Amino acid sequence: MPARERMVELFKETGLHAFVAHSYVNVSYLTQANIFTQRLIPDRLACVLWPAESDPVFIVCSIEEVAARRDSLIEDIRTYVEHKESPIHLLGEVIRERKLQKGRIGIEENVMTARHYKELSSELPHAKITGCDRALARIRMVKDGGEVELLKSAILATDAAISATCENAAAGMSERQLAKQLREFLYEKGADEVSHLILSVGENIRDVHHLPGDLEAKAGDLLHIDVGGKFGNYFSDLGRMSAIGEPTPDHMENYHLVWKAVQKLVDEAKPGICAKDLYAVYKRDALNHHLFDERLCPHVGHGLGVELHEHPILEPANEEQLCPGMVLAVEVAHRSSNGFVYHTEDIIHITADGSEVLSRSRDWRQLLISQ
Amino acid sequence: MPARERMVELFKETGLHAFVAHSYVNVSYLTQANIFTQRLIPDRLACVLWPAESDPVFIVCSIEEVAARRDSLIEDIRTYVEHKESPIHLLGEVIRERKLQKGRIGIEENVMTARHYKELSSELPHAKITGCDRALARIRMVKDGGEVELLKSAILATDAAISATCENAAAGMSERQLAKQLREFLYEKGADEVSHLILSVGENIRDVHHLPGDLEAKAGDLLHIDVGGKFGNYFSDLGRMSAIGEPTPDHMENYHLVWKAVQKLVDEAKPGICAKDLYAVYKRDALNHHLFDERLCPHVGHGLGVELHEHPILEPANEEQLCPGMVLAVEVAHRSSNGFVYHTEDIIHITADGSEVLSRSRDWRQLLISQ
Repeated sequence: MPARERMVELFKETGLHAFVAHSYVNVSYLTQANIFTQRLIPDRLACVLWPAESDPVFIVCSIEEVAARRDSLIEDIRTYVEHKESPIHLLGEVIRERKLQKGRIGIEENVMTARHYKELSSELPHAKITGCDRALARIRMVKDGGEVELLKSAILATDAAISATCENAAAGMSERQLAKQLREFLYEKGADEVSHLILSVGENIRDVHHLPGDLEAKAGDLLHIDVGGKFGNYFSDLGRMSAIGEPTPDHMENYHLVWKAVQKLVDEAKPGICAKDLYAVYKRDALNHHLFDERLCPHVGHGLGVELHEHPILEPANEEQLCPGMVLAVEVAHRSSNGFVYHTEDIIHITADGSEVLSRSRDWRQLLISQ
Repeated sequence: MPARERMVELFKETGLHAFVAHSYVNVSYLTQANIFTQRLIPDRLACVLWPAESDPVFIVCSIEEVAARRDSLIEDIRTYVEHKESPIHLLGEVIRERKLQKGRIGIEENVMTARHYKELSSELPHAKITGCDRALARIRMVKDGGEVELLKSAILATDAAISATCENAAAGMSERQLAKQLREFLYEKGADEVSHLILSVGENIRDVHHLPGDLEAKAGDLLHIDVGGKFGNYFSDLGRMSAIGEPTPDHMENYHLVWKAVQKLVDEAKPGICAKDLYAVYKRDALNHHLFDERLCPHVGHGLGVELHEHPILEPANEEQLCPGMVLAVEVAHRSSNGFVYHTEDIIHITADGSEVLSRSRDWRQLLISQ
C-alpha cells in the first residue's frame, strides 16, 4: 500500500479526479489482496477506483468476495456476478455515485483492454478518460524499507539457489535435470512460485531465453541461468553463467566482458543519474569493444518489485532519474562472433550516495571456475 | 496450427480481410513458437497478422528473433527493437504493404490494450477495426486427435498427482507440505509448469481459491485441491476433495451432492446441447436441493486447451452448441450452511454421441475414504 503522500503527489501531478487500477500488479499492490486468478483468467476483472477526494473502492467478482473481504486494505468492496453482470458497468455506477462522471479519470491504458476501454467510454460519455500508467508506475518505483528487505532476501535466496545448482552441475547432466535442481533449491529457500526458469548449456546458450530440454552438459560448456521467483508478492530475477569443469579461455574472456559491463553500470548507478544515461554508459563501453547490439540489448535493466519489469526501464529514451530506494536489475548481454550469447544480471539497491549490490555471493571468476 | 479449412471458415463467417492475433495463447497456437516472455512482460508484444488472401506474418521483438526463426511455422518474421521502435507501427507497415489499410481488420479486443488500440486506429485511419475474439476462440475450441491425446495424458498425470497427494495426506501435515508433495508429483509425472495450485484443509475450505499456508490438517478434515499444470502448450485443470482419515457424515453428504451435480452434467453433455442448457441443468438441480448459487457458480465449466478457461464457457447466456472434439472442464461448487465450499471438477471429451470422462481414476467415495 503506497504512502499517502505519494498518492497526494500523484493527483497533484496528473490533475486526475480519480484513477482506475486494473492490472493484477497494481490491484494487488493497492489492496494487498492477492486475486491471483486474474492472471490466469483476465476476463474475471478485479479493479480499484481511487478517487482523489474520497475513499477507494475495490470491485471484484463474487467468486472472490470472501478472500477480498478478508485480505483487502480497501474496505469498500463491490461485487459482480461473472458472465451476467459487467464489471465495467459496475465501475461506471460507482463513478456516478461519487459524482465523477464528468471528471478526469485515469486508466492503465497499457493494460485495460480495448473492449473495456470502449465500454467505459460509453458508460462515461462526459468523462475525460486518460492514461496514467507512468504516474502509477512512479508510485511503486521507490521501495520502502520493508520492501527492500523483502527483495533483498528474495534475491539472496535466488543467488544461493543458483550457486547450489552450479556447484552440483556436472558433465552428463541434462538441462532438465539441472532445472529440476534449481527449482527445488528455489522452493526450499522460500520461493512461493518460480516465475521464469531459463536454463541452457553448450550450443543452447545461443538462445537468449531457452527453456530447459534434453541436451546434456559437456566438460568446458557454459551453463546459463536466468531465473526468478515470487516471494510473497515480490519478484526476484538473476542471470548467471557458470562453467562445467574448466571453462575455455574464450568463454572466460566473453563472460568477463559482460560482467565488467554490468560492474560499470553498478559503479555509475547513483541518485540523480537518468535511466537513459546509464544506457549511454553501456553503449559507449560496448561500442569501444565492438559489442554494442541494441537488437539484443534494447535496455540494460529495469525496476524490480511486484512486477518483473517495472519502471524505470534503463532504456535509451527514459529520463527518469534514479533515486534512493529504487531496486533495479542491471543486465547486459552480448553475442560473440561464434554466436554464443553471454549474459549476466545483478540486482542493486540505490542508496543515498551510490548503490549496493544485493545479489552477489561470489565474483564472476569464482562462478566460472566453481567446479 | 489450425486446419486450413477452419481459417477459410473464419474469413467467410466474419468477412474480415485479415486478423491480428496478439494474445500469448493465440500467438503460440498460430506460430507454434513459445515466446513465453510475453506472459511476464506484456509490453514486449509478439503478434501475428493473418490475411485472408496472403501468407501470415509474425512480428516479434528482436531479442526473440533466434527462437522465433527456429520454432515458428510462420516463415515471414519481422522484428522491432524494444523501447525504440513500435510493434504497432511495424504492424501498420505490414498491413499497408499488403494493401489492407482500407480493409476490415479483426483484433482481439479482449486482449489488445487501449494504448495499442488507439495507436493502431491512428496508424490505419481508413481501416475498419473490429473485435474477432469469438471467431478466433472458435478456431481452437474443437481439438484434433493429437490435441485430445495430449490433454488426456496431461489430465491423467494430474489426476495421478492428486491421488498420490491424497494418499500421503495425514493429520499434522501443513497445507504447505501437502502442496510441496503435489507440486513434486506433478513435475515427476511430466508437467513443465504448475499453473495454479489451490490447496486448503479444515477451516480454509471456506475459501474458493486458497493458497497453501501453515494450517495443519486434522483428522476428519477435508482437503481441497484445485490444480493445473502446463504440459507442453496445454493446460490441465482438476478439482478434488479428499478426507484426512474418516470424513464426517456432513462432509460426505455435501461432497456427494457436488459430485452428483457434476455427474449429471457429464451425462447431459453431448453434441448438439448448448453451453447455456448445461448451465440450466445445473441450475434446475441445484434449485431442487436449495443449493443454487450464481455468485459462487456463475459458470459450470469451460473449454480447456492452450488456455485455462477457453471457449465455450458453460454459462447461462452462451449459445454455443457442444460438438465432437471439444475438451471441457465441468465443475460445480456449493457453500453449505456451515460456510464450507464443496467443489469438484472433471474433464470430459465430447465424442460422436456423448462424452468420455478423461479424469477419473477413482470415484468420489474412494476419494473421500482413501486413507
